[in-house]
Amino acid sequence: MSAAGWPAAVDVREVALRDGLQIEQPISTGAKIELLEAIVATGVRRIEATAFVSPRAVPAMADAEEVATHALGIDGVEWSALVASPGGARRAVDAGLRTIEYVVSAADGHSLANVRRTTEEAVAAIDEIAATVHGVGGRLEVIIATAWDCPFDGPTPIARTVSVARRARERGADQLCLGDTIGTTSPARVITLVEAVRSVLGPVDLGAHFHNTRGTGIASACAALQAGVTRLDASVGGLGGCPFAPGASGNIATEELLYLLDDAGVDTGLDAAATLAAAASAQRLLGHPLESNLLRAGGRSRPRGRAD
Amino acid sequence: MSAAGWPAAVDVREVALRDGLQIEQPISTGAKIELLEAIVATGVRRIEATAFVSPRAVPAMADAEEVATHALGIDGVEWSALVASPGGARRAVDAGLRTIEYVVSAADGHSLANVRRTTEEAVAAIDEIAATVHGVGGRLEVIIATAWDCPFDGPTPIARTVSVARRARERGADQLCLGDTIGTTSPARVITLVEAVRSVLGPVDLGAHFHNTRGTGIASACAALQAGVTRLDASVGGLGGCPFAPGASGNIATEELLYLLDDAGVDTGLDAAATLAAAASAQRLLGHPLESNLLRAGGRSRPRGRAD
Repeated sequence: MSAAGWPAAVDVREVALRDGLQIEQPISTGAKIELLEAIVATGVRRIEATAFVSPRAVPAMADAEEVATHALGIDGVEWSALVASPGGARRAVDAGLRTIEYVVSAADGHSLANVRRTTEEAVAAIDEIAATVHGVGGRLEVIIATAWDCPFDGPTPIARTVSVARRARERGADQLCLGDTIGTTSPARVITLVEAVRSVLGPVDLGAHFHNTRGTGIASACAALQAGVTRLDASVGGLGGCPFAPGASGNIATEELLYLLDDAGVDTGLDAAATLAAAASAQRLLGHPLESNLLRAGGRSRPRGRAD
Repeated sequence: MSAAGWPAAVDVREVALRDGLQIEQPISTGAKIELLEAIVATGVRRIEATAFVSPRAVPAMADAEEVATHALGIDGVEWSALVASPGGARRAVDAGLRTIEYVVSAADGHSLANVRRTTEEAVAAIDEIAATVHGVGGRLEVIIATAWDCPFDGPTPIARTVSVARRARERGADQLCLGDTIGTTSPARVITLVEAVRSVLGPVDLGAHFHNTRGTGIASACAALQAGVTRLDASVGGLGGCPFAPGASGNIATEELLYLLDDAGVDTGLDAAATLAAAASAQRLLGHPLESNLLRAGGRSRPRGRAD
């Protein structure tokens, strides 16, 4: 049983293979498959396998079809892929994916820099993407990037993020995810935004995606759970963030999130030792130290299942 | 006004000069004074200046008297020092300190390794220390080390930590602090222990001290505030933890804690820019990268006082 104030279960999506790898120097498809299999061994139920985006813009995702084919041969996992355009959605569906994440930036500055479209234009494209995904019986998630802050436009007005959320759902999004793209939010702001979205959309299925860039990612994830979010993205090793770009930091580390959820008696389906092993694999395959403090320190020894 | 669920104010104690420096290679007293002054400039109201402990055991604290003399020449701050024995308390009081922290390990394993006394023996010494401190009109805090876990004995039974807390107060402790000495606790366990202490001791003035060794320190600090703790230790730059000892990590970083408290509208008296500057000073004076993600990334630009 989970501790007071915690949900019984949290639905973790492992994003190391996409968000984790996309700004790294490309690693071989073989190395990705090795990491993918280590991640499958953690027991996680949802895995973001790759992104169907321009190989010129994101060379690390150039092997999307190959990775997807391998992934879809493994049962028991809900595999997803990120897309940034109707063409990407078509590619993902053709590759066999049935859970598609389409990213829309709530701020024009980031949207223009990322996909050369305004937020309005990106929202308008949901129609075509939803038709593509639903046409094959798939499921569409809209990830709202820069939901809290934009590196170009500053704080994103809450009304703007809520409006994107509302319109995404109206246009066919089956689920939504709030993305703290540049790792600037914090617990109080998380609660404010989640409550604002829920006050307009009602009890929508809401996920959240945090980076640990200001050290507050795990605390923000806890706040999101308090506010009713039940789906969280995380990345083994805290992968993501370029080691050569001062200031960048990765996603919240799956093993650190799991560490505190296990203590709280929250079910995730993940095994702590296997998750730490996957993080160690990621570090070995990438060839540089990852961000995760837990990976560095190791877990504590404790009787299994105890949450005193 | 603070956001819902947050206290109006949090009383931060800056511990970089003691817990932060004690396992570093000793730096000159001049460098310490420089850091001390950068910390004073943050606006923090309580600063742990040094420790009066064996200079053989902790060479980095050998200049305790000199640092204390300098500190006490600066008004507007409650200066404290850590001691581990009645002799240390006498030295601290003789140096002019009037807020004394006496550390008692709740686990015998850590207590014996740290001070060659069992927990019982360390508790018994509170009488003499309280007499020394109260004899000069001072204030005694008992810090309960290994309040959650001991590196030697494993998880500390809750009843054991609560018993130390109860007896410390009976023997004269004016305030108590729960120490996550090896950085293993997590939000759910924090709430459980704080509630257990409060259920036995009533509305006692309770502080907490977290390390970020498993990446969950800031989340644990938020949980402690939820549970009614209003005093938190933190260290600029996340100082603490030896860079040459794999696995060690420092205290929660003052600037990261402040970042989320500012967003929540919680008053601390600290200035964000000055705190980041103090963290940068610490990093320069120590000569190696510190743990703080925020120090690496920098804060976000935002209108002052806004917590949207």
